[in-house]
Amino acid sequence: GLRDFCAVLHPARVAEFMEGLSAEETWGVINAADPDKRAEIFGYLADEKQVRIVETTGRAEATQLVVDLPADDRADLLSDVDEQVVEEILPLMPQEDRRELLRIWEYPEGSAGALMTTEVARLSESLTVREAMETICRKATSHETVYYNYIVDSEDHLRGLISARQLITHFLEPDKPITDLMQRDVVSVLATDDQELVAEKVAKYDFIAIPVVDHQHRLLGIITHDDIIDVMREEATEDAHLSVGVGPLDQGYLETHWYALAWKRGVWLTVLFFGALLTIFALHSYETSLNAAPWLVLFLPLVISSGGNTGNQSATLVITAMTNGELKVTDWLRVMRRELVMGLCLGGLLAMFGYLCALIVSHFSGLVDPIDGGIVLPTALEATVVPITLLCVALCGALCGGLLPLLFKGMGLDPALMSNPFVAGIVDIAGIVIYMTVALSMLQVAG
Amino acid sequence: GLRDFCAVLHPARVAEFMEGLSAEETWGVINAADPDKRAEIFGYLADEKQVRIVETTGRAEATQLVVDLPADDRADLLSDVDEQVVEEILPLMPQEDRRELLRIWEYPEGSAGALMTTEVARLSESLTVREAMETICRKATSHETVYYNYIVDSEDHLRGLISARQLITHFLEPDKPITDLMQRDVVSVLATDDQELVAEKVAKYDFIAIPVVDHQHRLLGIITHDDIIDVMREEATEDAHLSVGVGPLDQGYLETHWYALAWKRGVWLTVLFFGALLTIFALHSYETSLNAAPWLVLFLPLVISSGGNTGNQSATLVITAMTNGELKVTDWLRVMRRELVMGLCLGGLLAMFGYLCALIVSHFSGLVDPIDGGIVLPTALEATVVPITLLCVALCGALCGGLLPLLFKGMGLDPALMSNPFVAGIVDIAGIVIYMTVALSMLQVAG
Ligand SMILES: [Mg+2]
Ligand SMILES: [Mg+2]
Ligand SMILES: [Mg+2]
Ligand SMILES: [Mg+2]
Ligand SMILES: [Mg+2]
Ligand SMILES: [Mg+2]
Ligand SMILES: [Mg+2]
Ligand SMILES: [Mg+2]
Ligand SMILES: [Mg+2]
Ligand SMILES: [Mg+2]
Ligand SMILES: [Mg+2]
Ligand SMILES: [Mg+2]
Ligand SMILES: [Mg+2]
Repeated sequence: GLRDFCAVLHPARVAEFMEGLSAEETWGVINAADPDKRAEIFGYLADEKQVRIVETTGRAEATQLVVDLPADDRADLLSDVDEQVVEEILPLMPQEDRRELLRIWEYPEGSAGALMTTEVARLSESLTVREAMETICRKATSHETVYYNYIVDSEDHLRGLISARQLITHFLEPDKPITDLMQRDVVSVLATDDQELVAEKVAKYDFIAIPVVDHQHRLLGIITHDDIIDVMREEATEDAHLSVGVGPLDQGYLETHWYALAWKRGVWLTVLFFGALLTIFALHSYETSLNAAPWLVLFLPLVISSGGNTGNQSATLVITAMTNGELKVTDWLRVMRRELVMGLCLGGLLAMFGYLCALIVSHFSGLVDPIDGGIVLPTALEATVVPITLLCVALCGALCGGLLPLLFKGMGLDPALMSNPFVAGIVDIAGIVIYMTVALSMLQVAG
Repeated sequence: GLRDFCAVLHPARVAEFMEGLSAEETWGVINAADPDKRAEIFGYLADEKQVRIVETTGRAEATQLVVDLPADDRADLLSDVDEQVVEEILPLMPQEDRRELLRIWEYPEGSAGALMTTEVARLSESLTVREAMETICRKATSHETVYYNYIVDSEDHLRGLISARQLITHFLEPDKPITDLMQRDVVSVLATDDQELVAEKVAKYDFIAIPVVDHQHRLLGIITHDDIIDVMREEATEDAHLSVGVGPLDQGYLETHWYALAWKRGVWLTVLFFGALLTIFALHSYETSLNAAPWLVLFLPLVISSGGNTGNQSATLVITAMTNGELKVTDWLRVMRRELVMGLCLGGLLAMFGYLCALIVSHFSGLVDPIDGGIVLPTALEATVVPITLLCVALCGALCGGLLPLLFKGMGLDPALMSNPFVAGIVDIAGIVIYMTVALSMLQVAG
């Protein structure tokens, strides 16, 4: 029946099968499972469904369910549940669990402390391999992982790490003291560290989990691989959103309230809009030349979008390289050289195509001169305004895009803030100025 | 001495300390370490340094080093090493290792097969807990992980999974057959599956590793959490690059040859450039209205960049939501409704600011009429062209940005291809057409 169904399949798969069910129906299925399976399956349900189940089932049942969850997931869940319900559940929880919950809640969202779970195996330094295995074995079901076990002194200071791998490898030497095997140089994070740093360390050292300590190096908890993977996904999404000027969302795209979404998008759009007002003034100050050579207008969007595209490429390449740790602020000279070459290459390429287009346009399109009604065609010489501008604009885009993120990073800001629309906006303005300056000098038009 | 230094610290940390050293100096340090530590430290060195060490040390030493590496890292390394050197090393390798190497090389870059390592614990179905632990214990050093152990039949068909957690938990019941404990519903990937799918499954099921099978469900290898984290980073970087029209890079930003980088960027820039040529024709066909109301040009970059920014926000929100599995193609109606609301809200906001600006410009800036030299000011009514256009353009950007990635996905293409510059390019053209159409009808100018 339902119970076997829940027992045989991976809990994530059971949760997946119930995707279409309502919270009440889901609860019906989960209730049929073994108590330990119940919490596991529950952990894989969508967040809103979890919240709904806790809010709608009886307080005693909800408390049991919540208590069976790992401490980190419990903290996440209860911070989404209606406050009234939480007030009622808290007193029903074992004191130890309640204390842990409040401890995790102390840390701000996005810090290592908010990400950790407190159910970590703590071994004392005096144990042998066999004793350690027995201890772990007794506590295995209540701990988040049995794979990394931390050795602490009587005051909870982190002394060493012994992995399940080392224990299994030495399981035929049961009397060996674990201090002989333990690794003393344990890499840890502070509870106040940013989750991005946590993910970086785990990625670098290939850990399954990383211990979280306080400033006195006392063991507070552990962050496991699965939560690191979620963090990486979250951070990648956040960076992608920042790169188009969308503030970090707390929930998914479809779950976010339209009002919140409009706010997160609107703020940056407004900032960008006011930045773009400068294009009005730039164009205004070149009004006379535009009137004298009206064909210039035709190439305006082409010229500025080419600069923006080149700039966005450079900015994103530099930002991702910094995120992946390949590039430091001190590499700015290399970046500048590289983007100089790129700007010349790509600008040269676009200039070539651009000159061809300008020549074709100049020969086939008769533009009416507003003053005498005659045809104004750019000569082959005048048409060189287009390729020269494209070259300069691409160069400007590549250099701005490459260097501005480094500048931001150097100033202690998140380089992802120097995102695509900003670079494009700056290059839009620069593009207009370059275009008109080139046109002025090539066409000998008076300013 | 050096040996203790290598023994006490985490291999990644030793590798980090040697970052500034040359390949030769690094080899000197590694050589002082225990043979098993040597391969571990080597595995954390930068790729180019690894290649350089293999190419420059004696063939016998290089072979030993290569053989000590995990099979997946060995395959990656040797595919970067000079072919001549590989030819010399291959015959020196144990036959088994050589066979494994060639098997991994059969799979294309980016597939599960190319990512897997073949050193996986295979247990027979007849073992007890104690026998299983003994088997694992004997092979622990040669296997990539002891945490997930797979149970196979005599023909290597994957039958079940037993985790080290389960073994440790039942270590006080040594005679229990592992078939009583093993999980039979094992989630696996095909060797030909894309690495993105692998990462998705691991993220979903919170695995430490995932087995790789062939079409007959025979166990080929395993992919571990650390390589999954690298894949996620790679894929996030690739998506970020695609989103600005940079083809996937094989190496980092600074390592990629400038010629390769110029090519990967130039191709898309050229495509975008030719797309943007349409803006010339769009503007050309509205030449007369532009001449009649030259102030329209002033707002042109503002109008099209606002549309592009809104479109990029929508596109990126939808693409990341699809990448994270929150959004399916079948949700297109919800996306359309959502973006309709967003377009109206954000467009309304921009329209408000835009109208203010247009009024200010119309009152404070005297534009010279090219025909009679007088001042052409847009009236308060004429200035409504700007807000109306901004509203329409934001709406168009939001809808294009939201729906085009879904369309691409529906057509079986990578939605990331419908990236920011494409959306911006489309909205640039649409923006010009909308702007001029609105202007035509508002200003009663003849086409
Ligand atoms: Mg949390
Ligand atoms: Mg790693
Ligand atoms: Mg967790
Ligand atoms: Mg989790
Ligand atoms: Mg962050
Ligand atoms: Mg970030
Ligand atoms: Mg643009
Ligand atoms: Mg590989
Ligand atoms: Mg997960
Ligand atoms: Mg590996
Ligand atoms: Mg690796
Ligand atoms: Mg891919
Ligand atoms: Mg992808």
